[in-house]
Amino acid sequence: MINHENRLLFSSANCSVTEALTIVGEKWTLLILREAFFGLRRFEEFHRALGCARNLLSARLQLLVDHELFTRTEYREEGQRVRAEYGLTQKGREVLPVVIGLLNWGDHWLKAPNERPLHVRHRGCGGNIQVDLVCSRGHSGLSLRDMVAKPGPGALMSLPE
Amino acid sequence: MINHENRLLFSSANCSVTEALTIVGEKWTLLILREAFFGLRRFEEFHRALGCARNLLSARLQLLVDHELFTRTEYREEGQRVRAEYGLTQKGREVLPVVIGLLNWGDHWLKAPNERPLHVRHRGCGGNIQVDLVCSRGHSGLSLRDMVAKPGPGALMSLPE
Repeated sequence: MINHENRLLFSSANCSVTEALTIVGEKWTLLILREAFFGLRRFEEFHRALGCARNLLSARLQLLVDHELFTRTEYREEGQRVRAEYGLTQKGREVLPVVIGLLNWGDHWLKAPNERPLHVRHRGCGGNIQVDLVCSRGHSGLSLRDMVAKPGPGALMSLPE
Repeated sequence: MINHENRLLFSSANCSVTEALTIVGEKWTLLILREAFFGLRRFEEFHRALGCARNLLSARLQLLVDHELFTRTEYREEGQRVRAEYGLTQKGREVLPVVIGLLNWGDHWLKAPNERPLHVRHRGCGGNIQVDLVCSRGHSGLSLRDMVAKPGPGALMSLPE
């Protein structure tokens, strides 16, 4: 993208990637979102699917509620205490391309075709789902060499050395 | 996607997302890749751009070389010792949609339009770069409700409870 001379004039302290990673930049948080994309909603379901420590799962679910990727609602089954259910918000649903990007990359680079544990297909036509890099004027199939990065209105200059 | 009854019949132990996250599921690793997408190649450049601890940066660069996302080559400047330079491989370059996905999400959900520190544009036409979810038969602009997940050839059954 931009050359590294320009890059080093700007601070990465307020980068949107950095800030996104403070919320979804932890393995278990992304795995919980993966399970929510599959339709799971309850603590016991997430725990069964992920097999992680209960206190870790609890803390990550709380983080996702605090940052409004999940809403928490209560339910009570016959003879049981009140429990919490977690539903994706639009903010949470829009993490999907990141998870599909990781799935595509893992399928391509870490698995042989006959080792792939999951196919994600288009409900309408059965085609395989992929992430694509596109531009707002309709060009698709873009890669690194097609891109140029420019400082936006919120860019901060780096501190001089 | 698939309903949660089906989901819990299958293990997530060998999921491509899980395996991708063992390599790129750590904040600093993704930030180093972001800098490599900007064109940075040298330890001192990464250190200056990221401001992280040198031993952490060293360990993450080694991880990226070990997993073949970077190649390491040597260079020597006049009067200096031999130093290492890091270049993206195709495997590394293909993490780009994940990073652009994080950038788009952070720009949309964590920043006001006038706070965005970076614009990534199509070199050809100037359009804004975005990730899109598409299918192999040419449908684009897909979202969660358009997708269905099915066990692939490598799917593992969950252990019975």
